[in-house]
Amino acid sequence: MNTTLRKDADQIIAASLKAVLPDEAVFRALKSFRPGTGRTLLVAAGKAAWQMANAAVKALGRVDDGVVVTKYGHVKGEIPGVTCYEAGHPVPDENSFSATRKAVELVQGLTAEDRVLFLLSGGGSALFELPLVPGPELQDITGQLLACGADIVEMNTLRKRLSGVKGGRFAQLCAPAQVFSIVLSDILGDPLDMIASGPAVPDTSTCAEALAIAEKYQLKLSAEARHLLTQETPKTLDNVTTQITGSVRELCAAAETECRALGYEPMILSDQLCCEAREAGSFLASILRTYAGSKKPLAFLAGGETVVHLTGKGLGGRNQELALAAAPGIAGLDACVFSVGSDGTDGPTDAAGGYVDGASAAALKEKGLDVFEVLQNNDAYHALQAIDALIVTGPTGTNVNDVAVALLIPSEVR
Amino acid sequence: MNTTLRKDADQIIAASLKAVLPDEAVFRALKSFRPGTGRTLLVAAGKAAWQMANAAVKALGRVDDGVVVTKYGHVKGEIPGVTCYEAGHPVPDENSFSATRKAVELVQGLTAEDRVLFLLSGGGSALFELPLVPGPELQDITGQLLACGADIVEMNTLRKRLSGVKGGRFAQLCAPAQVFSIVLSDILGDPLDMIASGPAVPDTSTCAEALAIAEKYQLKLSAEARHLLTQETPKTLDNVTTQITGSVRELCAAAETECRALGYEPMILSDQLCCEAREAGSFLASILRTYAGSKKPLAFLAGGETVVHLTGKGLGGRNQELALAAAPGIAGLDACVFSVGSDGTDGPTDAAGGYVDGASAAALKEKGLDVFEVLQNNDAYHALQAIDALIVTGPTGTNVNDVAVALLIPSEVR
Repeated sequence: MNTTLRKDADQIIAASLKAVLPDEAVFRALKSFRPGTGRTLLVAAGKAAWQMANAAVKALGRVDDGVVVTKYGHVKGEIPGVTCYEAGHPVPDENSFSATRKAVELVQGLTAEDRVLFLLSGGGSALFELPLVPGPELQDITGQLLACGADIVEMNTLRKRLSGVKGGRFAQLCAPAQVFSIVLSDILGDPLDMIASGPAVPDTSTCAEALAIAEKYQLKLSAEARHLLTQETPKTLDNVTTQITGSVRELCAAAETECRALGYEPMILSDQLCCEAREAGSFLASILRTYAGSKKPLAFLAGGETVVHLTGKGLGGRNQELALAAAPGIAGLDACVFSVGSDGTDGPTDAAGGYVDGASAAALKEKGLDVFEVLQNNDAYHALQAIDALIVTGPTGTNVNDVAVALLIPSEVR
Repeated sequence: MNTTLRKDADQIIAASLKAVLPDEAVFRALKSFRPGTGRTLLVAAGKAAWQMANAAVKALGRVDDGVVVTKYGHVKGEIPGVTCYEAGHPVPDENSFSATRKAVELVQGLTAEDRVLFLLSGGGSALFELPLVPGPELQDITGQLLACGADIVEMNTLRKRLSGVKGGRFAQLCAPAQVFSIVLSDILGDPLDMIASGPAVPDTSTCAEALAIAEKYQLKLSAEARHLLTQETPKTLDNVTTQITGSVRELCAAAETECRALGYEPMILSDQLCCEAREAGSFLASILRTYAGSKKPLAFLAGGETVVHLTGKGLGGRNQELALAAAPGIAGLDACVFSVGSDGTDGPTDAAGGYVDGASAAALKEKGLDVFEVLQNNDAYHALQAIDALIVTGPTGTNVNDVAVALLIPSEVR
């Protein structure tokens, strides 16, 4: 193994994972928050709600009042000025509804001088919900939609209208106060209205579409529910500022910064990678071979979420397959390729990803391992383990996809 | 279809294919040729030998003497001062041997003031050969090696020693005259001693290795052949200058130059791409999505030779699959991805490759075509044909792999 490259890799991994942890992400986003002359209220929803709220109150010093709605077992202590609630996820329960009602009550009667700090993370769709029809009826409608094969866009179009907070309605309730929304994103390309059905994002779907869907699937609806489908959601919101943070884009940017700090000239190829993991590894290796004569240390970065097709019964994950597949292509080069999942868990393994360098192909051969065969068997974990090339971080507490990095150092500076 | 992008694509394709045609490639390489004060002799071998020799004589005005050895039917006319021979390919025959002998005689007794212009192209291994054992014995040894599963490196190690011209020996025969060698490369990464077993390249294999191979496979060899295995090939050659030309590297460089001329800021990602065609297309699309907000027109280039796994019975080729696979990922963008084979023939089709842009996904959908299904059926040809997205050039007369290009224009300059 090339110890210089492995050391650099570990440093880049540590720095980029740290940058997307909820605390860091909230600190960074809050830099552009300007308090009003009135009150500052905090509403946080999602699996990372407690952690985001805790970080925000630390950063701001204090808030005037606040509500946190998170998953059972996710409240880690008291936050000054904030009431924390735990509720059902992924299926919302009465606690989701009552906690969300507290949040809605909190933002009643605000003035233009007040500010609402709205912190949203994954899982917010179930945790932050106030149905306008009785809970059982909402569940029945969801069941009908699932049974008739409605797609996610159709589901959301209906559900936004049956909710008191989704589809931009929560932000509408906060008006005339300004809403500063911080979204911890775990969806590629950051489609805002897909994250928790966008409580503070203008809705692009229409009542006409909602009614057409009800007609198309011949949904059985109460008169009340049918009436709700005719109630339009906000199409513009002039009281919302949104900061997307902790996304794969920031994961890549942090890796890029650390690469530069270590003397590499970095280039982000993509933050929306979605191809087959092993082919991405081969592509990165072919880039390294092409630049093998470079006089400067170079770094090529690709973030996103690759896919793996199971053809075998081995153990592995997409990051491990990506790295392993690059090994033959960079054999003999002063180069490495590593890939890591930001949640610290790659596939059903205890590793976060894998690392290979110019010496890995020979090391694998020595162990009697053929890269092609290992990949056919989806057994990257054991192959990488055999040459001490797993990346193990433990669970990180966040999930903003993966980042793969290809490093190259000129032979003369070795 | 985006007509601006398609026009740019066609221009880039035309310019890059032109640059790797044998004539252009020889002209370019000859720019660094310095004639001596003595004679200039020409020796050309390979499938493109006649065309390379004809171009060289045109460029230089004249040569003092010369020999061309090419495949049957490949001599297209007289070349002043040069004698042209046709011979067997891929299996060498007596005409290969006698023509090669003429070349060897031509370079006897040269002085340090003389120059040998040595033009090599694909097929040179069979066409340029002077066995040191009788032809039938060489054939028998080759047969034994094939039968016992010897690899290509082992085969070449033996065959170089049984040949009067391979493994650097032809250049040795030319000494003290300087040899200016122009190699038209069709192998990724340009491994010089793999091209026609390197008549003008120092040999890295040793007699000890050759004898070990004979021992390993228990080869039946005549006393003469066994003796030849103990005769070392040149390990250094101080009278050779080599220009590799018409390679995929030049194909990429020419595409890069044309991109820049058209106002794009180009970047060559790789000239050694070898992954699955459709995944390369997805990777390029994810790069374009990442840079979609760019204020400058950008071009990303990747040369090489991707692979296709057949899972269906449709019609297509690797360049067509690469392009088609990029269509969904760039839907709606002011961007395009195209890929073309330099020989003008992609797979078993009359197309050289394919082109898609931001409008292609919608056009395919309108025709009832699903990209995933089309690729599963390996039927890219018909899908691209349906939306007028094939690239047709006709056979080009050269083969230096493929080039794929991804172009992006800022929306405001549309």
